[in-house]
Parts: sequence; C-alpha cells; structure tokens
Amino acid sequence: MVEAGFTEHRRVVVGYDGSESGRTALQFAVDEAKRRRSTLVIVYSWTVPEFGYGPTPSAVEELEAAGRALLDDATAQVRALEPDLDLETVLEEGNPASRLIEQCETADLLVVGARGHGGFTSLLLGSVSDQLVHHAPIPVVVVRRRA
Amino acid sequence: MVEAGFTEHRRVVVGYDGSESGRTALQFAVDEAKRRRSTLVIVYSWTVPEFGYGPTPSAVEELEAAGRALLDDATAQVRALEPDLDLETVLEEGNPASRLIEQCETADLLVVGARGHGGFTSLLLGSVSDQLVHHAPIPVVVVRRRA
Repeated sequence: MVEAGFTEHRRVVVGYDGSESGRTALQFAVDEAKRRRSTLVIVYSWTVPEFGYGPTPSAVEELEAAGRALLDDATAQVRALEPDLDLETVLEEGNPASRLIEQCETADLLVVGARGHGGFTSLLLGSVSDQLVHHAPIPVVVVRRRA
Repeated sequence: MVEAGFTEHRRVVVGYDGSESGRTALQFAVDEAKRRRSTLVIVYSWTVPEFGYGPTPSAVEELEAAGRALLDDATAQVRALEPDLDLETVLEEGNPASRLIEQCETADLLVVGARGHGGFTSLLLGSVSDQLVHHAPIPVVVVRRRA
C-alpha cells in the first residue's frame, strides 16, 4: 500500500569532494533542497593516509585546510545561485561513506556523485556510492552527467 | 561550477514489481513527481524463463496479465492518494534494467527499490538497482525503508 510521505527532517545531504561528479551531485542537491524547502548540508571528509610512522601533525592540518577550502568554494557557488537557501557544511576526518551515513540519521535524502576522487582503492573496495546505496538508511540519489 | 538545473523532461520513472521495496520506491516517486509537477511513469517488465522447448504462448500471456494486474493495482493506489497526478504505465517484456534505462531517455529521474523480486539470479549478476546506478544516464534514486 502506498502511504503518505516519508518522515521529514528537511535536510538534503550531499557528499562533495571537488570532483566533476561531486559538482554534478551538488547541483542536483541544490535543486532538490530548493524544491523540498530543505536545508542543504554539504559534507566533506577525508582519511589520513597511514604509512611509516604515521601522519605528521602538519599533514593532518593541511588535509583539513584543503577540505575547508573545498567547502568554502562550494558554499560560494551555491550562494551565487541560491542566496536564500539554508546551508550547512560538515568537515570531518573519517571514512567518507561512514561520515555520510551518520548524517543520514537526521536527513531525508542523500545525494552523491557516481564517481569521486577514489582512485585505485575504490576499484578494490567498491566505490563510496556503491557502499552508500547498500547501507544508507534513507533514499540515495546517485548522480552522473547525462551522456 | 554549479550551474542552473538539469534538462527537464518532467517525467519521473519508477520501476515497480509489487515487492515491498518496489512499493516503497513507488511512494517516494509519487511524492517526487508531485513536488516536480512531473508525470509519473510506472514501469513493469518481465522476462520469460527459458527451459526445455521454451515458453508456451499461454505462459507468456499469463506473465503479461500478471504484470498488467500489478500496474492496475499500483495505479489505483496512486490515484487514491493523488487523484490529479499525471500518470502513465509501461508494461514490456525484457530485462528490467534495460527497459528502465530506455525510459531514462526522456526522463529526469529514475526511482527504484533497493531490493526487488530478483531471487538468486540477482546475487549472481548484480541486482537491478546496482546495474542502474552504474549505467543509467540520469540521476537514480535507490529507496529502502528506514531501518
């Protein structure tokens, strides 16, 4: 039986990594948040590569600063198109799929690009979008450019 | 750079197979079509199992009739909730993922359940939703029930 709508948290979460696929996902998420009159939550997370004696404190700071710059750039792009959209950013160290799934607890929709900055690792482990489609507790939109 | 919206065909396509997952996808698609002021297109397709000397004509007719009944039931459920929604149904023999991808040519969004009536074959070949996430030319929403 089809029932009246899903629980509404009025949050659309998008994973953003600066890739072309991530920008396409961001564009879709902006449109969707506007249509749903929802807050757009832009999430970037990163993992510190571990080798040798582990990462130096300055490497961690650099990765965090790069993430912050990505989110500031995304915010400026969204603001230029939709100045009145309610907007949040989340910058957190950790596995991107895990961090995005945490955000799903209080969201209606998760949006991700079909292909991110995963490199070779994602071929071995399954891409972030595949992990999310299988494990996120809310509807997941996988966005690619129209061929 | 984030740009103004995607090409709009004003069609939201949903794959429906009568499973619980399919019903959840249908519910999401109804809400989304309403929000987008789009036509909802409900698609059911089936493949004729081949063994021995192949299917009898009556087996083909039975499968088609069962599909028609599923679509009629889905239409009645949607109509009860949203009498004014523009609605189409598509009933076609063939691989479900292929038939859904054909419909994407003139649609903005494809909605599918996370798990359908695939049975053991889907474990071997990858589920329909996995195929669509990897091959559909438009954004794909994979819907599951909230845990």
